[in-house]
Amino acid sequence: ADSAASNAARDRNGQLTKPPGALGRLENLAIWYAGWRGDAQPQINAPQVIIFAGNHGVCAQGVSAFPAEVTAQMVANFEHGGAAINQLAKAFSARMDVHALSLDTPTADFTQAPAMSEAELLEALQTGWAAVDPQADLLVTGEMGIGNTTAAAALAAALFGGTGADWAGRGTGVDDAGLSRKAAVVDAGLALHDSADPLEALRCLGGRELAAMAGAIAAARHHRIPVILDGFICTAAAAVLEKTHAGALDHSVAGHLSAEGAHQRLLDALGKTPLLNLGLRLGEGSGAALAIGVMKGAIACHSGMSTFAEAGVSDS
Amino acid sequence: ADSAASNAARDRNGQLTKPPGALGRLENLAIWYAGWRGDAQPQINAPQVIIFAGNHGVCAQGVSAFPAEVTAQMVANFEHGGAAINQLAKAFSARMDVHALSLDTPTADFTQAPAMSEAELLEALQTGWAAVDPQADLLVTGEMGIGNTTAAAALAAALFGGTGADWAGRGTGVDDAGLSRKAAVVDAGLALHDSADPLEALRCLGGRELAAMAGAIAAARHHRIPVILDGFICTAAAAVLEKTHAGALDHSVAGHLSAEGAHQRLLDALGKTPLLNLGLRLGEGSGAALAIGVMKGAIACHSGMSTFAEAGVSDS
Repeated sequence: ADSAASNAARDRNGQLTKPPGALGRLENLAIWYAGWRGDAQPQINAPQVIIFAGNHGVCAQGVSAFPAEVTAQMVANFEHGGAAINQLAKAFSARMDVHALSLDTPTADFTQAPAMSEAELLEALQTGWAAVDPQADLLVTGEMGIGNTTAAAALAAALFGGTGADWAGRGTGVDDAGLSRKAAVVDAGLALHDSADPLEALRCLGGRELAAMAGAIAAARHHRIPVILDGFICTAAAAVLEKTHAGALDHSVAGHLSAEGAHQRLLDALGKTPLLNLGLRLGEGSGAALAIGVMKGAIACHSGMSTFAEAGVSDS
Repeated sequence: ADSAASNAARDRNGQLTKPPGALGRLENLAIWYAGWRGDAQPQINAPQVIIFAGNHGVCAQGVSAFPAEVTAQMVANFEHGGAAINQLAKAFSARMDVHALSLDTPTADFTQAPAMSEAELLEALQTGWAAVDPQADLLVTGEMGIGNTTAAAALAAALFGGTGADWAGRGTGVDDAGLSRKAAVVDAGLALHDSADPLEALRCLGGRELAAMAGAIAAARHHRIPVILDGFICTAAAAVLEKTHAGALDHSVAGHLSAEGAHQRLLDALGKTPLLNLGLRLGEGSGAALAIGVMKGAIACHSGMSTFAEAGVSDS
């Protein structure tokens, strides 16, 4: 981040027509955003939402309440404008892009083999990197992939320790038996793969859409585009970057706390406090897209308000 | 609320392309909103933000960190577009109106006399009622009034019991001595006035902008316009309606949890769970205005998403 810009933003914040600190977290969000944009009085004019979709071999283990065909059906729904994320992107004037990643070639079942080859991992990371518009000024990455809460749970366990039971959740709505299966499947994956290296954990246990999200979040940092993280799957993918290089997610804020089981645990491990807590557990970037509104409000106040001197208001 | 519309909205919600419950609280917000609007697939096109400003005789007791002139200065700032609420109203495409209520004639110091005469109370309630645009489809009421956290604390204590120490907070930022003064001032007001009747409590301890907010919130119900409540002062004013007639705030949702001392206590007393919790304590309707974004997101999803049948997505 640009410390001259954050210092200038902090200085401006202190002069705005409000009691000190009265805008709460919005004030720190604005200063943080200003630092990454290198602009003490920034605007949000071009948010981008990118949805990555992938299929998962681990679905063969019965880990989802929905059949794998739903991934492609939902990609069509995204393309036709009918999903929740379409409405949220439109409501907050964000550009939305959809990338379906080799849906006809699911990853390998990670209880049997590494989910991806090195070439497949690299391709997914590159797709994510290239999907980011360098002119965007705020990024949300979302996902669709039947079975991907299981992949995310396995990845989180590999990155932060713990067992399947610690990280598996109900996803789209599995019953108790399904939840136990997910935990056992995660444990089997952890036992099979040597996943001490974060990128190797992503390759062996993750999936193409998780890798693409990690690639996009890394690209956003390169382009100085602040990121709003979505729920459990997005945060697990992003955590690969943080475990690879501490501080790699400093340009990212947690958009919301998902109702998906272990999202709080994952945010705690990353030291991120969510902006919203409304019980969403949909994925698609939906919680993060809703938080675009909070970011827009924060930046509108910071950059649009008058100072005490400009407004002729007594500041004490 | 219109039960046919809420039932139809609940039915629609069950058919949308998402796992059941995956949009969390957004789903119930949409069904609630549909019921009040009498429309199972509603839109939010015309939110209205109304700011009421008043001055307070109790400022003579040294209860604020800012001088009373700031009320009029901030009204000018609202009119020139320089305050936080101007930026938030613009960010969420809300119409914004400002009503300055007899700023040159502060209410009486409630430690000495009733804050308002019956005629003054009635005039303020009517101003609030008349300020609501019957064509609005969502209402935020905000306030500005140096000294009004003290009036709101006294009102809350009269309505819900407890002492000044239970309800007084730091407002725009008083120090420990100021906080003790506020608590003692509230206790003096409670001792002086017989405030068993909620409207009489509003008259004796409240202020013109509080009464106007209550009038506006009542008018919104008449017009079937859902309301987003702001922080401590707005919620205290609204509570007068609920204490007068249980259920009178069923058309209202708590926009945020303010950092002002006793807002949580007040929301608990009303059984309202806030949409946002971002540490704001500015007033002006700012927290509620930020929550317009959440409401817009909820309604955009509910009314814009495709059903499983429309999208050709397998629903299990």
